[in-house]
Amino acid sequence: MSEKTFALKGDICYSKSPGELRILRRGYVLFRGGLCLGAFDSPPAEFGEITVKDYGDSLIIPGLVDLHTHAPQFVCRAKGLDRELLEWLESTAFPQEARYGELSYAEAAYKHFVADVVNGPNTRMCLFGTLHVPATKALMDMLEESGLVSFVGKVNMDRNAPAYLCESSAGESGDATVAWIKETLGRYRNVSPILTPRFIPSCSEELLGRLGSLQKGYALPVQSHLSENLSEIEWVKQLHPDCSCYGAVYDKYGLLPEGGRTIMAHCVHCPEEELRLLKDRDVFIAHCAQSNVNLSSGLVPLRSYLDRGMKVGLGSDVAGGYTTSILRAMADTIQMSKMYQCCGHPEEKPVTLKEVFHLATAGGGAFFGRVGRFERDYEFDAVVIDDSTYNPLIELSMEERLERAMYLSEGSHIVQKYVRGREIK
Amino acid sequence: MSEKTFALKGDICYSKSPGELRILRRGYVLFRGGLCLGAFDSPPAEFGEITVKDYGDSLIIPGLVDLHTHAPQFVCRAKGLDRELLEWLESTAFPQEARYGELSYAEAAYKHFVADVVNGPNTRMCLFGTLHVPATKALMDMLEESGLVSFVGKVNMDRNAPAYLCESSAGESGDATVAWIKETLGRYRNVSPILTPRFIPSCSEELLGRLGSLQKGYALPVQSHLSENLSEIEWVKQLHPDCSCYGAVYDKYGLLPEGGRTIMAHCVHCPEEELRLLKDRDVFIAHCAQSNVNLSSGLVPLRSYLDRGMKVGLGSDVAGGYTTSILRAMADTIQMSKMYQCCGHPEEKPVTLKEVFHLATAGGGAFFGRVGRFERDYEFDAVVIDDSTYNPLIELSMEERLERAMYLSEGSHIVQKYVRGREIK
Repeated sequence: MSEKTFALKGDICYSKSPGELRILRRGYVLFRGGLCLGAFDSPPAEFGEITVKDYGDSLIIPGLVDLHTHAPQFVCRAKGLDRELLEWLESTAFPQEARYGELSYAEAAYKHFVADVVNGPNTRMCLFGTLHVPATKALMDMLEESGLVSFVGKVNMDRNAPAYLCESSAGESGDATVAWIKETLGRYRNVSPILTPRFIPSCSEELLGRLGSLQKGYALPVQSHLSENLSEIEWVKQLHPDCSCYGAVYDKYGLLPEGGRTIMAHCVHCPEEELRLLKDRDVFIAHCAQSNVNLSSGLVPLRSYLDRGMKVGLGSDVAGGYTTSILRAMADTIQMSKMYQCCGHPEEKPVTLKEVFHLATAGGGAFFGRVGRFERDYEFDAVVIDDSTYNPLIELSMEERLERAMYLSEGSHIVQKYVRGREIK
Repeated sequence: MSEKTFALKGDICYSKSPGELRILRRGYVLFRGGLCLGAFDSPPAEFGEITVKDYGDSLIIPGLVDLHTHAPQFVCRAKGLDRELLEWLESTAFPQEARYGELSYAEAAYKHFVADVVNGPNTRMCLFGTLHVPATKALMDMLEESGLVSFVGKVNMDRNAPAYLCESSAGESGDATVAWIKETLGRYRNVSPILTPRFIPSCSEELLGRLGSLQKGYALPVQSHLSENLSEIEWVKQLHPDCSCYGAVYDKYGLLPEGGRTIMAHCVHCPEEELRLLKDRDVFIAHCAQSNVNLSSGLVPLRSYLDRGMKVGLGSDVAGGYTTSILRAMADTIQMSKMYQCCGHPEEKPVTLKEVFHLATAGGGAFFGRVGRFERDYEFDAVVIDDSTYNPLIELSMEERLERAMYLSEGSHIVQKYVRGREIK
């Protein structure tokens, strides 16, 4: 009990479950040593002396979690979005990523990315880097310094990629990955490595096998892409005719480790068998609504994923998406869920504000452990939003304030962020 | 030739046609007395002495036009968007509009709306007010003062509305409208009245007839809503079983005057006959992509409207939409056009950046006359965007810069706006 106890005072709101908000007007959320002690109408005596930071009528919500984004593509976001996935990779993403072979470019570019995220509402992220180890380590160093919590992946790709962005062999890719793991695993307080095969078409079978071994050997989590685009799915089928679905290829090589250690981004066009596999393997789906629109990937049957009890979080997927903010991802998720219903699925009710807030906090947070709620022994991540400037001349319930915060908040409205109890803005 | 000639220097881009951008890097766009003289690589000698305002590498584009929005709903934007149109009107829009019966509230609230638009990229608008004449006049006074150019409508509604927001009779509504027209027509330099029946369900036949007479008598333009939502369309069918489609009701009462004097917002679910009527009557469609999503109205076959040569501009439709910016409306239009293709219409190519830029400038601008291009004798409206802050470490073509300006610009990036040659920011 040597550490001090703190409280943030304000209008507190967090998701207890997909259907339930907990709301405390002018309440207190307590934390000590980076861990939450709970949210209360008034501070309980049991916690002794408390240092209170009073944020007035500001909204205080858990930090938002981005389960899928590409840090190197940030500087080329909002570019070339008239193409679908495979063409866009060739025209826009790959040439941009190649520049990270030059460390000084990487350092300059990642600085913009990290500054943007620090300025926004996200507190945790799962990130793709590039295939370059020095650049990826530079990104990890910067993220550690920022106080944000993240998993970061050195990307693996040894085939079906332009020569300027392709590792020369599975051996080279695997060896570089081992060296990178040894240098980064356990090195940081806030940053951890995650295995990151780009996607099935980019990885030879030998490389997939090697990554599967590394997963076992180092007990690392895994992130990749799955069933995003119809042409991509067809390509995977041609490359792996022995596998019954796209997801089965990852599974064949041991890349869907159980225990909630895997994130698969997109999952737009999953056949029934693939969904069962993801559920069996306890895989997190990173739902990337904006990217799925920008690259014309399609609308996702998100309601049915929730009904099945799939694990789902939200992803900004920069630069298929053009904004890092998970508040915007929440809005896009609701909007595209409405369009899914409009387009021939009248029985599938759109996801609600409460549900999408849950996905953005506790949903994605679960990948990081006990994260995303203001409850005892959860890690303490919080975002303080001054919503007074866009709420003049109107009376609002707390749920309505949350709705408006989702649609209307910009970086300037976020007055403070806490990650593991530390102020980071 | 007593007036001075000015030029803006910068990276100029405007739409010559839906398929063609005109681009001048470090070019000059000239204007005099509120009218454009054209865009040039260097200032032609024929114009004599010119005062040049150099905006460096900033983008200079024509002012953006918002063909449909509800000024009184601005303060309640981003609220209650889990409902469809008719429910949302009852729960959110109508109670908000009722507050404008109090002039002091209206003045305070409209101030926020006008400030937001001045800060953004729009230079011209077609606006709904409320049914209240004093509040609507206050809005017109503020808009005049701002320098923005607008059509503003006192709303007519005498049935199927809650008692707190319903005119007591067609006679009262019509008389108030006449009084309002007499006070406002020709009074302003930048603001003009426009006839504004809310939508068919809100207006008795007697009122529709009276408005039709006023249209003829005063040669006024008309704005309303059309075929936005399936329940609304069904309701109109029940109210007017003699009319073959929703649009035919407006036409029956003389409210689709020819000559490009009418705007119909939404047009999501128009049957073939209705589209033919709109084309025959030279009606402008205000395409409101974000609102159509937020209120689950549906996806619009926009490609087919363009192929038919319909007149189309963009609308923010606050507060079905939650942002006034027509840059955001451009992005939403492209996104929803992609989703329309994805959802069962593979033959309908999404609208392109060039096309949507055309709709946002010259497309909507045509409702105001010669507006939306940097060409001789067009009215001179321009927006200067400093896009340097979000374009570090990347080389971009002018078209790519326009794409990024659409997706990434916020108010702070808009360094100056000109309307009819006057600086207004």
